[in-house]
Parts: sequence; C-alpha cells; structure tokens
Amino acid sequence: MTQAEYKQQYARYAACCEQRLAQLCDDLFAPESEIGQAARYSLLGGGKRVRGVLTLACCALAGGGEAALDFACALEMVHCHSLIHDDLPCMDDDDLRRGRPSCHKRFGEATALLAGDALLAAAFAVTADARDCPAQSRTAATALLAQRTGCMLYGQELDKYHETHPADAQQLLALHANKTGALIGAAAALGCTAAALDVPQSGVYRALDAYAQAVGLGFQIVDDILDVTASSEQLGKPAGSDAANGKTTFVTLFGLAGAQQMAAEQTDRALAALGDFAEDADFLRLLAQDLLHRGR
Amino acid sequence: MTQAEYKQQYARYAACCEQRLAQLCDDLFAPESEIGQAARYSLLGGGKRVRGVLTLACCALAGGGEAALDFACALEMVHCHSLIHDDLPCMDDDDLRRGRPSCHKRFGEATALLAGDALLAAAFAVTADARDCPAQSRTAATALLAQRTGCMLYGQELDKYHETHPADAQQLLALHANKTGALIGAAAALGCTAAALDVPQSGVYRALDAYAQAVGLGFQIVDDILDVTASSEQLGKPAGSDAANGKTTFVTLFGLAGAQQMAAEQTDRALAALGDFAEDADFLRLLAQDLLHRGR
Repeated sequence: MTQAEYKQQYARYAACCEQRLAQLCDDLFAPESEIGQAARYSLLGGGKRVRGVLTLACCALAGGGEAALDFACALEMVHCHSLIHDDLPCMDDDDLRRGRPSCHKRFGEATALLAGDALLAAAFAVTADARDCPAQSRTAATALLAQRTGCMLYGQELDKYHETHPADAQQLLALHANKTGALIGAAAALGCTAAALDVPQSGVYRALDAYAQAVGLGFQIVDDILDVTASSEQLGKPAGSDAANGKTTFVTLFGLAGAQQMAAEQTDRALAALGDFAEDADFLRLLAQDLLHRGR
Repeated sequence: MTQAEYKQQYARYAACCEQRLAQLCDDLFAPESEIGQAARYSLLGGGKRVRGVLTLACCALAGGGEAALDFACALEMVHCHSLIHDDLPCMDDDDLRRGRPSCHKRFGEATALLAGDALLAAAFAVTADARDCPAQSRTAATALLAQRTGCMLYGQELDKYHETHPADAQQLLALHANKTGALIGAAAALGCTAAALDVPQSGVYRALDAYAQAVGLGFQIVDDILDVTASSEQLGKPAGSDAANGKTTFVTLFGLAGAQQMAAEQTDRALAALGDFAEDADFLRLLAQDLLHRGR
C-alpha cells in the first residue's frame, strides 16, 4: 500500500464515521434541545476519528467487512464525552478544543455537563441497536465499551491526582494505559467483536490488541512531545499546558530525546504485533507510523 | 394485601436491590479508586429504591419473577448518576443529599463528576451482562435505558431553563414527564422486558406504562408539595429550595390545595390503569397510595 493509498483509505474510513455520526445525531437528539446542539457541536467538530478508523480497520482485517461502523461511532461518542467533561473548569479547565471554544465555553457549564452525559448514554443506545450485528455481538460490545469507559474514567482520576502528586514511570504508564489506552484498545476489541471473533481468545484479536496497546501508548507519548514542540495553532488547543499545569509527562520524566525514542519503540512494537499478517495489514502498519509522525 | 404485608414486600424488594447493588459495586469499581468510593457513597447511601422496587414489582406482575433484578439495579445507578450531577455547583448546587453531604461536597467536584460518569457507564455494563436474561432482552433493556436517560437529561435541561424563564402548566408537565417520568416509566418497561413481554405492544405493558406515568407525575407533584410543607430534616435536603431558586412548581402554579388535588388525581389514574388486574396488582396499588402520602 502506497502512502497515497493509505491516506485515501483513512479519509474513506473517517468519512464513513462522520456521515454515520451525523445520522445518529439526527436520530438521537431532538433539534430543539440545547444539549443536542452542544453534543453535535463537539461530536461533529472535526476530530481525526483515530478510534473510529482503528475500529473499522481492525474489523476489516478480522474479516468483518464494515460491520463495525456503529461500534466505531459509539466509541467516538464516548471519546467525545470524555473530552467535554475533561475540559470543564473542575477538570482541566480548557477554553479551546480543536481550534474552537470548548463545549462549556460555547454553551455554558450546565449544558456541557449534560451534553457529555447525553453522548455517553447515547453511545450505549448505539451499541445496543447496532445495525448489521446479532444480539450476542451487541451485548458483548456494550459490556466491553462500558467496562473500558470505566477504565478511561479511572485514568482521568489518576491524571487529576498526579497534577499534585508527581508520578514515577510506572505510575505514568498505568495512568495512560487507562486514560488513553483503554479506548484505543477498545477499538481493536470492538472491531473483532463486530467480526464475530472470540474476544479475548482469538489469536487475531490478541495480535490486534497488542498492536492497539502499543499504538495507544505511542499516541500519548507523542501527545506529550507535541505539547512541548508544537504551536497552539498546530494543536488547536493551548501548547505548553502540561508544563503550566505542572503535569508529569513522558517529556518531564525522560527528556525530549528520551520520549522520542520511546515513541519510536512503541511504533516498532505495534509493527511487530502485526508480524503474522500479510499485506492486508498494511493500512494498520502505515497508521502506526502516521500517528508517530503526526505534527511533524 | 394488608398495609403490613405491603411494607414487608417493599422492604424485601428494596433489600434485594441494596444487596445486589453492593455486589455490583464490588465487581465494577476497584477498591483503590476514589471514583469508586464516591460512587459507592452515593449509590449505597440509603435511597428508597422506588425505581428499583417498581421494576421488580412490574416484572413479577408481568410473570417474570425476579428476572429484572439487574435491570432494576441499572436503573438505580442511572438515577444516582443524575442526582450526583444535578447537585453539582453548575446545576442545582446542593450541599445535602439524603441527609448527608452531597457527593461533590464530600469528594470534590472532579471526583463527583467522574463518579457520576462511572455510574452511568456501569449501568449499561449491568444491563448488557444481566443475569437470568437472554441476549435479546439485554439489548432491548440497554437501548431502552439509554433512550430514557436521554429524556431524563433533556428534562434537566428544561428544568435549568425554567429557572430563569417561567413555565406554564404545559411546559411544567413536559419538564417532569422527561425529568422524573422517563426513568419511572423505564421501571415498567424494564420490568416487562425482563418478563419477555413485547414492549411496547403488550397490553400488560401498556397498562403498567400508564400506571408508571401517573405515579411518576404524582411523585413529582408531591415533591413540590413537600418542598413547601416538610422540614429539611424530613427531606434530608434543604426545604424551600425551589422557592429560593425561583422555580416554577405545581405549588406556585396551582397553589398548595390545587397541587394536593392534582396529586390525588394522579393516584386515581394510576389505580384506574390497574383496573384489569386481580389482587396480584395490590402491591402496585398500595405503592401508588404510599407515594402520594409520603412525608405526611
């Protein structure tokens, strides 16, 4: 697969998510509801859809075709929920998200709180009613997404805690395995569930899970690097906010060069996890490298 | 059924919920997590379990025995989520709940926010994995609970809006049909789903839904009355808070006597909806009267 074919395929997956998310918003949120408007504003506000794309690509590789589209959208909804609540004043108090005012800056705190709640609840309506999936897959996906959401929330707790209690390397890894890794790992699991694989026994699932774990960790390390090296315009949110909040990051613990080295290692691990697959895994291979190099 | 038998049955249903909720907390929340502690604090903090009891009673009447226990617990978890978020400073800013500090007063705002989120996500893990139910019922219950949660959140939006924009009678009814009615109605629907009835086609479901709608509205009218007539000790939260917040209530719109009359009418409607049932519906009949007379 050439780089151009990869970009085309990524764009196609992302567009599938985008289109279905817009449909789901119409189905799920009454037009007169301000919560619904706030949910649309944040959900359809131009994310890269990494989690959704990863879900679709894992499902395709696992032989499930495009059956995971609704699961991919539900995962994006949970992710968006977490961003809205994470930006609230009692959490990270961020005014900007994806280059625009964060949800509570635009709609007020109460509406942002309720919009985050509504997206979270709606995600499970989507998994429970997912098109093209038997009831057994839908219950498995719902339970899995709910469980991983719990891990993500626990990661946010750890993140908050370590704002005032310095983390060591092990604690930082545990934090991000939950905060970022749980939902990126969910992409692999949801993709395989839609493909009717036996999660967690299937060998294909275990390879894709190892891939997603490495990609998830690499993703977070690159995030920490970009907070130091990129501009606010490039990030769509304030650069340097980790340092301003006194956060322990992979950069503060290992230095910039050390963090860059670690990110490259995670990409190698992700590629190694795909070792048994033929060229039909090329999209995932290029995705892992793309995520490492984003922002450069 | 005598009043004593009713009270005994209520206590038995509530104890079933209480015990299973404690088990589910052990399964769902890591002991070291502060979110988990906050969720336990609020969830196991002595609610009356009206929604859970109603779910179990509807399921029993619909021929499902005790199959609805996990659905009942999931409903209580969503309700608890809504109380935690509703008490936050950006919403009603309440310091007391059930006679104790509200969740954010005890654990801080960030933890209360995340604990509410965790309870909401966990509720869907519980419906998706519910014991004693086939996958078809579990997906139906999950979708139904998610959809009703959306209605409840919309009701909270309307509630917030009408703090500064006076509501007329129709708007007040719409507000409470969503804010309180959606989850009380969900009790009937979840009970019938666990009993494998065809929701919404079954005649038994439709009767129980009409019953739950009337009980839900009556419940809210009595809430408004108690805010005026009861002490803070009786309520476990500040009395007179509706007036202090400038809220339109059934008492401000119709006066105390008018509101009392309306509450009695809703009880009559609830009893009429049960007209076709024999004495096995006596528990629900006595429950409707009990809810009308609570706080007296």
